[in-house]
Amino acid sequence: MDFKFLQGLIVPAPTKIAMIIMDGLGGLPLEPGGKTELESACTPHLDALAAQSALGLTVPVGPGITPGSGPGHLSIFGYDPFQYEIGRGALEALGIDFDLGPNDVAARGNFCSVDAEGIVTDRRAGRIGTDVNRELAKLLREIKVDGVETFIETVKEHRFAFILRGPGLDDALTETDPQKTGVPARPVCALKPDSEKTACLVNQFIEKARRLLTDKYPANMILLRGFARYPVMPTYLELFGLRAAAIAINAMYRGVAKIVGMQALKVEGDTLADEFTALEKNWNDFDFFYLHVKKTDTAGEDGDFWRKVHAIEEVDALMPRLLALEPDVVIVGGDHSSPAVLKSHSWHPVPTLLYSRYVRADGIAEFGERACARGSLGVLPAKDVMPIALANAQRITKLGA
Amino acid sequence: MDFKFLQGLIVPAPTKIAMIIMDGLGGLPLEPGGKTELESACTPHLDALAAQSALGLTVPVGPGITPGSGPGHLSIFGYDPFQYEIGRGALEALGIDFDLGPNDVAARGNFCSVDAEGIVTDRRAGRIGTDVNRELAKLLREIKVDGVETFIETVKEHRFAFILRGPGLDDALTETDPQKTGVPARPVCALKPDSEKTACLVNQFIEKARRLLTDKYPANMILLRGFARYPVMPTYLELFGLRAAAIAINAMYRGVAKIVGMQALKVEGDTLADEFTALEKNWNDFDFFYLHVKKTDTAGEDGDFWRKVHAIEEVDALMPRLLALEPDVVIVGGDHSSPAVLKSHSWHPVPTLLYSRYVRADGIAEFGERACARGSLGVLPAKDVMPIALANAQRITKLGA
Repeated sequence: MDFKFLQGLIVPAPTKIAMIIMDGLGGLPLEPGGKTELESACTPHLDALAAQSALGLTVPVGPGITPGSGPGHLSIFGYDPFQYEIGRGALEALGIDFDLGPNDVAARGNFCSVDAEGIVTDRRAGRIGTDVNRELAKLLREIKVDGVETFIETVKEHRFAFILRGPGLDDALTETDPQKTGVPARPVCALKPDSEKTACLVNQFIEKARRLLTDKYPANMILLRGFARYPVMPTYLELFGLRAAAIAINAMYRGVAKIVGMQALKVEGDTLADEFTALEKNWNDFDFFYLHVKKTDTAGEDGDFWRKVHAIEEVDALMPRLLALEPDVVIVGGDHSSPAVLKSHSWHPVPTLLYSRYVRADGIAEFGERACARGSLGVLPAKDVMPIALANAQRITKLGA
Repeated sequence: MDFKFLQGLIVPAPTKIAMIIMDGLGGLPLEPGGKTELESACTPHLDALAAQSALGLTVPVGPGITPGSGPGHLSIFGYDPFQYEIGRGALEALGIDFDLGPNDVAARGNFCSVDAEGIVTDRRAGRIGTDVNRELAKLLREIKVDGVETFIETVKEHRFAFILRGPGLDDALTETDPQKTGVPARPVCALKPDSEKTACLVNQFIEKARRLLTDKYPANMILLRGFARYPVMPTYLELFGLRAAAIAINAMYRGVAKIVGMQALKVEGDTLADEFTALEKNWNDFDFFYLHVKKTDTAGEDGDFWRKVHAIEEVDALMPRLLALEPDVVIVGGDHSSPAVLKSHSWHPVPTLLYSRYVRADGIAEFGERACARGSLGVLPAKDVMPIALANAQRITKLGA
């Protein structure tokens, strides 16, 4: 179902939708036959909500595909992750709260080590400390390139974001990172005529950086990859008629939400409770709220099963504050799975509940992977959740007579 | 799966398929946690059939989309509702049993009220009685337009169907209905060069109608919208090799069935039992039967939960007459949901059972929304039901060696 079609059926309604995304929610049992993180968690409020909800398992991108945060979020936001893409460079810049604009091309940067012949000997420059990175970034900011602005923003250790800002830039560029040692860094090449000017400017920058860093071993060179412009996509307001707000502690998720036209709300503090306070404060001013929970994913990626369980329980304990606002539609789900036993993102479908007054409730009083597998939403593409939520919010009119 | 592919695998077989469509079958409970209309109904025969069937929930058009009768029926008939469409004007003409042909362009018409300056003051002419409509329609039939035939057919109250018949007509036309009062009716404009002649003819007709109706306030003008030709689609015989028959009291459903090449059978009387009698009478002459039940939808749209329950029970009581004919494949489902609590069509998936000797029965002895949510057909696009039914009727051969 494409957006043009859906857009034509959108009607206004005085309803509110809340989407709680527990990053990397889906899990696996510690031992075969055991319970997953979500199934192990004590979640009385989510279980009670599940009983009044339709349950299902969302597939973020496609069967067997493990999504990164970009495609995972775009999917659950309703965007076909094959059609819409956030380049790695853009994601890196958004992740450090860099205010990426439409005239920018961003890339992921590494400080690296090269020998006297320019052969890469360590792609990560011995993982220099973040402080060293900051000093070197200052140095690189002295570089001037013809007619464009450049930004070097420390991420951490050897990593930084590189942004070129100016008219007529294009991101169809090859990467300089050779992805292995023992060979020189590659020059940037244009992949189409429109990007030749950008390739030339980036190569100028790299050459100047090489000279400036010559005595800074182990960080005596830079590698750039994932060149990407700010992705232009239709917004929530244009597509769905929703004034949408995003609540996230971590900059990257605010960034992804901004790309789809959500307003990133100020969160006073950095706890999950602070996020719920931001939700309450702004409740009257928006139609749609996306609230991001980071701890579930970091615990999963750290392989800490019980920390993930507790992160889920923390969300459960805060659910009454959301429900007290009387949202018309509530979605609780995730952008992908991050089972602690895998210590990484995974391809597993993500448990999801959709509550509304008009949902056909499955009557399954449990929020968990196996409970959701029995739910009436079935196993569905994550991008299909938003249309169903909009229907439940009575924001889609009838098709045809 | 596109039709070309499926068509290449169709083989003949001496088997019969019966599809019982309860219009707007899917429902919602009156109170959260309660039973839906179908779950509340006492349906011993459907429950017994369910036990020997595969169950599932069909999604008529797409997630969250509430279909009208046109797209709802095309989907359950096996047609991709994004690819095939029945325009509103064509549906209106079919709904009054007008014999729409390939040289016709049809529109929905309203009598309306305009002031001395031609400003629309009431888009529905105060909802004039159907008798008045018939008198005015007679008057409009006097209008002659160059080289084409015109038809004005009363629907009810202020509504009529307008049909233009002749060579070289095209339906790419804008509407005259401004959709609000306080502005004049719009002229019809051609949306492409091929429709310029038609636009000109329609505008001629409207001008003549305006003059004829000048002293007929409140019905002193007409509005036309939803211009549409008779939709041309591949037929059941061409696609599936099925000699298909349609049994429906209401003209619109006979019309939609005729579009896909079904023969609309004569029903003596206007009860559901009469429809089953028509089924029995014609059993030997066709391979496929579509039998339409209207009352479930009208009860749903009227918000009458228990009337819908009884309409379902009426179908159940007649099921033995169908089963006595020993059909090879039986589909019982709907074209969309019409929950009484919503008093309208809705987006909810539709409970569906598929019985045959070769179906992998789920052993769930209950026909209801939650029972079907547990069924092995899963949540599936409505258009996928026909290929599965054809396979069960042994009418699809093996693909590849």
